[in-house]
Amino acid sequence: MASHQPRPRSLPPSPPLPHSSPMPLSLNQWTTKSWSLAEAVAGCVGQGVPGIGLWRDKVAEHGLEAAARLVRASGLTVTSLCRGGFFTSPDSAADNRRAVDECVALGTDVLVLVAGGLPAGTRDLPAARWSVLQGISDLAPYAAERGVKLAIEPLHPMFCADRAVVSTLGQALDIADAAEAATGCGNVGVCVDTYHIWWDPQAFEQIRRAGERGRIHAFQVCDFLVPIPADALLGRGHVGDGVIDIAAFARAVRDAGYAGHTEVEIFNRQVWDAPGELTLRTVIDRHVQLTAELG
Amino acid sequence: MASHQPRPRSLPPSPPLPHSSPMPLSLNQWTTKSWSLAEAVAGCVGQGVPGIGLWRDKVAEHGLEAAARLVRASGLTVTSLCRGGFFTSPDSAADNRRAVDECVALGTDVLVLVAGGLPAGTRDLPAARWSVLQGISDLAPYAAERGVKLAIEPLHPMFCADRAVVSTLGQALDIADAAEAATGCGNVGVCVDTYHIWWDPQAFEQIRRAGERGRIHAFQVCDFLVPIPADALLGRGHVGDGVIDIAAFARAVRDAGYAGHTEVEIFNRQVWDAPGELTLRTVIDRHVQLTAELG
Repeated sequence: MASHQPRPRSLPPSPPLPHSSPMPLSLNQWTTKSWSLAEAVAGCVGQGVPGIGLWRDKVAEHGLEAAARLVRASGLTVTSLCRGGFFTSPDSAADNRRAVDECVALGTDVLVLVAGGLPAGTRDLPAARWSVLQGISDLAPYAAERGVKLAIEPLHPMFCADRAVVSTLGQALDIADAAEAATGCGNVGVCVDTYHIWWDPQAFEQIRRAGERGRIHAFQVCDFLVPIPADALLGRGHVGDGVIDIAAFARAVRDAGYAGHTEVEIFNRQVWDAPGELTLRTVIDRHVQLTAELG
Repeated sequence: MASHQPRPRSLPPSPPLPHSSPMPLSLNQWTTKSWSLAEAVAGCVGQGVPGIGLWRDKVAEHGLEAAARLVRASGLTVTSLCRGGFFTSPDSAADNRRAVDECVALGTDVLVLVAGGLPAGTRDLPAARWSVLQGISDLAPYAAERGVKLAIEPLHPMFCADRAVVSTLGQALDIADAAEAATGCGNVGVCVDTYHIWWDPQAFEQIRRAGERGRIHAFQVCDFLVPIPADALLGRGHVGDGVIDIAAFARAVRDAGYAGHTEVEIFNRQVWDAPGELTLRTVIDRHVQLTAELG
């Protein structure tokens, strides 16, 4: 089940991309990490991928205003901006407002939030989680006024200490409910990412719950590879290369009323080392297969 | 927060071990992996540790009957036998009955169960979880007739695919409830292991739930080290070397009515490479500190 990408001398033809799919494809640009923003946009346009998920670092490299012009001219749907959050760090508030402004400039209405880990040297997980709720409640009105939805992304529990103290969909939805109760803003929801939540016995129940409240703001997919590589962050594979029944999750978010894109986000050294064009071709092929499986 | 063990030329004196602690210390013998069963028993007796948690492979090396004589003669409490389970593999049933018989021989009433991962090449997590419930329901009456309690150990979600499809205390308790409903046997409960569950937003609520039904059959502790090492299995540290508020968990299980031992189980290359006597001394020192923190 290890991820591997052969490097053929010429790209074989792909089946046509189902543009009319109920959950059309979006390329999260970290999947083609070696590509600049301009290359990723050109790649999506060239291969007929209708959506792109942007990262703030790549946008900053290009310059925000130029990036905004580029993606608007491309006709691509910007399905999300990654990422705000890190509420357990000092000074996150100002940076998160900037991230919301960047969403507006780039023409996306979804900001993905990674909660942040335990503050260095501390062990007080409930306190860190409280900081996340506070930070989101502070940010929600600012984002709502600008038409931006906040998508809390629970990360796999292996990243609880150093990246995200929000570890499950249920916990993220509890935060969304509490933030709405505190602020009256209904724009806080979740990013459902198969890699992070596939193990959760409550995942499908919580996807239904999220759908009932209109809280599924993004759907990201990639596979979970076994064994976990030495750098645990990079154990993500192309759809079908790992242990996750990704079609079951695609069905679940669709049945919960999600009508947005399927954004493919892969962190994997081999995928990153492959030519961007080939990686994108594999992403497209797997999406075609996934769509066929969904029926 | 990395685990490290200095190697002094002579062992410094330790403070006296709190034998009368409400949760006395037990050494899980894999913590001193280089030690044989005889060495571990001698180490515990020599350093005044009242309990030991045994592993079937170490017991088999010594021979079951001889092992039983040895531990009975030592006066140590055998706090658990690791491990049965692996219900998603064929032929687990007969082996699990043997594990129950070994508990009886060794004089422990707790068999720790690791659920087993996804069957190779499959992605059907609900089916694998169903197999676990079936396997436990099959085993519970056999164990109950012999006075043995089954302690389902949820493993960290990073091990869901290859080791244990039971990932949370709540899920384990749902299985225990369902097994009791199916069999009438009340002997199915959980092993609460800080390393595996510390990240879970529902952990304390589920510890209370477990206590209310008398389902906390074992309490294992070690710390969670960051970063996760290349072999993710070995990222466990001595109490205090990682990110877990272990005292909070000790208080929680105590307040939930657990009156058994605190069994220290550490998988860590550096800890294993240290002399067993030194590792055990560190285990004792940290237990003294933990007990003091509990008040």
